[in-house]
Amino acid sequence: MNIKPKTLKGFRDFLPKETRKRQFVINTIKSVFESYGFEPLETPALEFSDFLKGKYGEEEKLIYEFETKGKDKVALRYDQTVPLSRVIIQYQNELVFPFKRYQIQNVWRGENPQKGRYREFLQCDADIVGSSSPLSDAEILKLVLDIYKKLGLDVTIKINDRENFKDLDRKYISAIDKLEKIGESAVLSEMIDKGMTDDDAKIALKNLQEKPQTQNIKDIYSELKLLEADLNKIIYEPTLARGLDYYTGMIFETLTEGYSGSLCSGGRYDKLIGKFSGVEMPAVGFGLGFDRTLEILEEKNLINIPFSSVRLLVILNNNTKDKSLEVYQKLRNANISAELYLEENAALEKQLKYADRKNIPYVLIVKENVLELKDMSKREQKSLTIEEILKTLQ
Amino acid sequence: MNIKPKTLKGFRDFLPKETRKRQFVINTIKSVFESYGFEPLETPALEFSDFLKGKYGEEEKLIYEFETKGKDKVALRYDQTVPLSRVIIQYQNELVFPFKRYQIQNVWRGENPQKGRYREFLQCDADIVGSSSPLSDAEILKLVLDIYKKLGLDVTIKINDRENFKDLDRKYISAIDKLEKIGESAVLSEMIDKGMTDDDAKIALKNLQEKPQTQNIKDIYSELKLLEADLNKIIYEPTLARGLDYYTGMIFETLTEGYSGSLCSGGRYDKLIGKFSGVEMPAVGFGLGFDRTLEILEEKNLINIPFSSVRLLVILNNNTKDKSLEVYQKLRNANISAELYLEENAALEKQLKYADRKNIPYVLIVKENVLELKDMSKREQKSLTIEEILKTLQ
Repeated sequence: MNIKPKTLKGFRDFLPKETRKRQFVINTIKSVFESYGFEPLETPALEFSDFLKGKYGEEEKLIYEFETKGKDKVALRYDQTVPLSRVIIQYQNELVFPFKRYQIQNVWRGENPQKGRYREFLQCDADIVGSSSPLSDAEILKLVLDIYKKLGLDVTIKINDRENFKDLDRKYISAIDKLEKIGESAVLSEMIDKGMTDDDAKIALKNLQEKPQTQNIKDIYSELKLLEADLNKIIYEPTLARGLDYYTGMIFETLTEGYSGSLCSGGRYDKLIGKFSGVEMPAVGFGLGFDRTLEILEEKNLINIPFSSVRLLVILNNNTKDKSLEVYQKLRNANISAELYLEENAALEKQLKYADRKNIPYVLIVKENVLELKDMSKREQKSLTIEEILKTLQ
Repeated sequence: MNIKPKTLKGFRDFLPKETRKRQFVINTIKSVFESYGFEPLETPALEFSDFLKGKYGEEEKLIYEFETKGKDKVALRYDQTVPLSRVIIQYQNELVFPFKRYQIQNVWRGENPQKGRYREFLQCDADIVGSSSPLSDAEILKLVLDIYKKLGLDVTIKINDRENFKDLDRKYISAIDKLEKIGESAVLSEMIDKGMTDDDAKIALKNLQEKPQTQNIKDIYSELKLLEADLNKIIYEPTLARGLDYYTGMIFETLTEGYSGSLCSGGRYDKLIGKFSGVEMPAVGFGLGFDRTLEILEEKNLINIPFSSVRLLVILNNNTKDKSLEVYQKLRNANISAELYLEENAALEKQLKYADRKNIPYVLIVKENVLELKDMSKREQKSLTIEEILKTLQ
C-alpha cells in the first residue's frame, strides 16, 4: 500500500480525549434542550439536491453535491433548517405542534478551510415551529442564556427586530450588518458605494441607531421578565442585522468577551416553511456554533472532565493472573467501572504509564498476599483489603 | 416551489419518538463500552476514496464516491474498520496501546433497499488494537454478552477459529459460510460446483464439522471462565466461517431466538492494519448491527422509555398567565424539567392533547385560586399547593 493515510482538508478525526470533551459539551447542551421539552430530530446526511437549491443564496456553491450510481442527484446536509422545513411538510400529521425540536448533527460546506473553519462541523439547532407568540421568542432567548449558564460561560445576547429594516433595501442591510466588525465610516462608505448619497447614508444609519424598541421587542421583554431571564444580558441593538434573508421578526446574536463573532444566532422566520409548502407556518429558533463554543470553553478552562470513564485499572502480572481477574470481577460485580490490563507480559511501569495516559484515577496492583491501591494523582500507594478498596471507589 | 419534499430511498428521518428510543439504546451500549475502558473515536464522513479502494472486495461497488469541486476524489464512510486502520497509522505516537476504542457513527452503502436494509445506517464498533492476547478475544466476547444482558436480550454467541479453514480454498469457505442459511446439501452442491468432487466435498465438510477446538479457542475459553462469562452462551461451531477475508483467528456471530441473522459479529484480524502500514498490528473487535438490535428489542417490547424528557406541562390560560409563568419558574428553579405551553389562546383540551401526544406524565392547570395537578396516565386530577406539587414531582 503506497497511499499515505491522511484526513481531507477541513475534515477532522476526533481522538478519544477530544471526543470525550465534545460529548460532555453536547450532553450539557442536550440536557438544557430537553429540560424545556425540545425533542430530538435526525435527518439523513443526503438530501435530493433540488430541494436544497435556491435556499442558501450565494453560499449555494459551497454545497457538496454529486450524482449517485443510481442517478439520484444528491447533496450533503448543508444546514438543519431546510431539512427541518422538509420534515414539517412531510410529517405534518404526525408531529405535535408547536413542534419543539433540537437537532445536533454534522453539516458539510466546501468552504476554504482556515483557523476555526471546517468543512465538516457540528451544529446544535433548536426551533419552535407553529407558534407566533412572543413567548416563544422569549423561550428561545432564555434557552440560550440557560445553555451558556450551564456551560459556565458569561454571554450577552443582542436582539433586534427585522421590522426596523423594513424601509431599507436589502443591499444596505448587508452593509449595516458589518457595523460591529468594520466600524461606522466603513459601513457608510459601503452604503454610498451601493448607491446612497453621503447625506442619505448618514441619516439612514443615524435613524436606525435611534430606533426605539418595536412593540414586538417590548412584548418579548415582558415575557422574558416573567421567565425570570437576566434582562441585563439581553441588549436591544437596533443596528443588528443578521445576514440571512429569511428572518421576519426578532433576530439575535450571542457574544462573549474576548471573542469577536457570534456564538449562537437566530431569530424568527415566519415565511420560510410556507415558501416550501404554501401553508404559512411561523417559526423561531437558532443555530449554536459548536466549534466556537467549545474553543472558548477550552480557552477559559471551563471543561472539567479530568478522569477516564473507568475508575480503576487492574494490573496484570503473570504470577498473580488468576487473582487479578478474580478481584477485577469482584469490582465489576459491585458495579465499579474497572479496566483490566490485557497484555500479560508487560512491565508494571508500562501498565502504570497506560493508566496515566488514559487518565485512570486508580491502579490496583495485585500481589500474592496483598492488594495495593495506587492513587494516580496523589502518587500514593496503600495496602488495602478488597472491602476497603470497594469502599474507596464507591 | 414544486418539489415534493421526500427522503431518498434507503435513507430515514428519525422523528422525536424514534430518536429518543435510538438514543436510549445507544447510551446503554455506550455505557457498557465505557465501563470496560473503551474510548470514543470519531472519523470524518468523507475519506479519500483511494484509501477505501481494494478493502471491501466485491462490495466496493456499493461505496458512495464523487469528486469535489476542489477535485478531491472522496468517498462516504463505508465501515469503521478501514478508518480505524487509518487512524492507527496516522496517530500511532499519540494513541495509548492496547488501543481500546468504540465508534458509533453512520455508514453509507448503496445497497438495494429492502426490509431492514438501509443506505444510511448506524454501526456500533468496538476494537482492541495492539494486543494478541487471548484475554483480549475473551474481553470482546464478554463485552458482547454484557451489552445484550444490559439491553435485556437473551443471545448466544457462536465462535470458531479461522485456523480450522487453513487447508481450504477461499471459494469453499464462502460456500460453507452459508451452512446455517441454506443447509448441508445446498452447501455441498456449491462446493461441487466450485470444483470439488462429490466425495471430497463430503469429506471436507465432515472433517470441518468434527474439528476439535484449537488451542487458541481453548485458551479463550479459559479466559472467559476467569472473566465469569456464562459459558453456556458461547458455543464452539467449527463450520462458522464469516464472510470477510481479513480474519486471522477467533471469529464469532451473535444470535437470538426468532431471528435468523447475526446481531453482532467480529473476530481477530492481525494482518489488516499491517497491510496499510507495513508494521504488524494485532487487532480484535466487532461491529454491532444497530438497526437489527433495535428492531428485535422493539419486537420483544424491551425498550421502556414511556415518558418525555420533561415531567410536566404547565397550561397557559389568558386569565392566569402571570401566575402560570410564576409557578413554571418555581418548578424550573427547583430543577424540575417543566414545559410551558407557548400559545396563549389555545383551549385546555388542545393543551392536554399536546401533553398526551408528547407523553408528558403530568399537567398543571393553573386557576385563579388553585393549582390542579393532572396525572396523565391515571387520568386523575388533584388540587394541590405548590409545595405538594414539588413533593410529588421530586
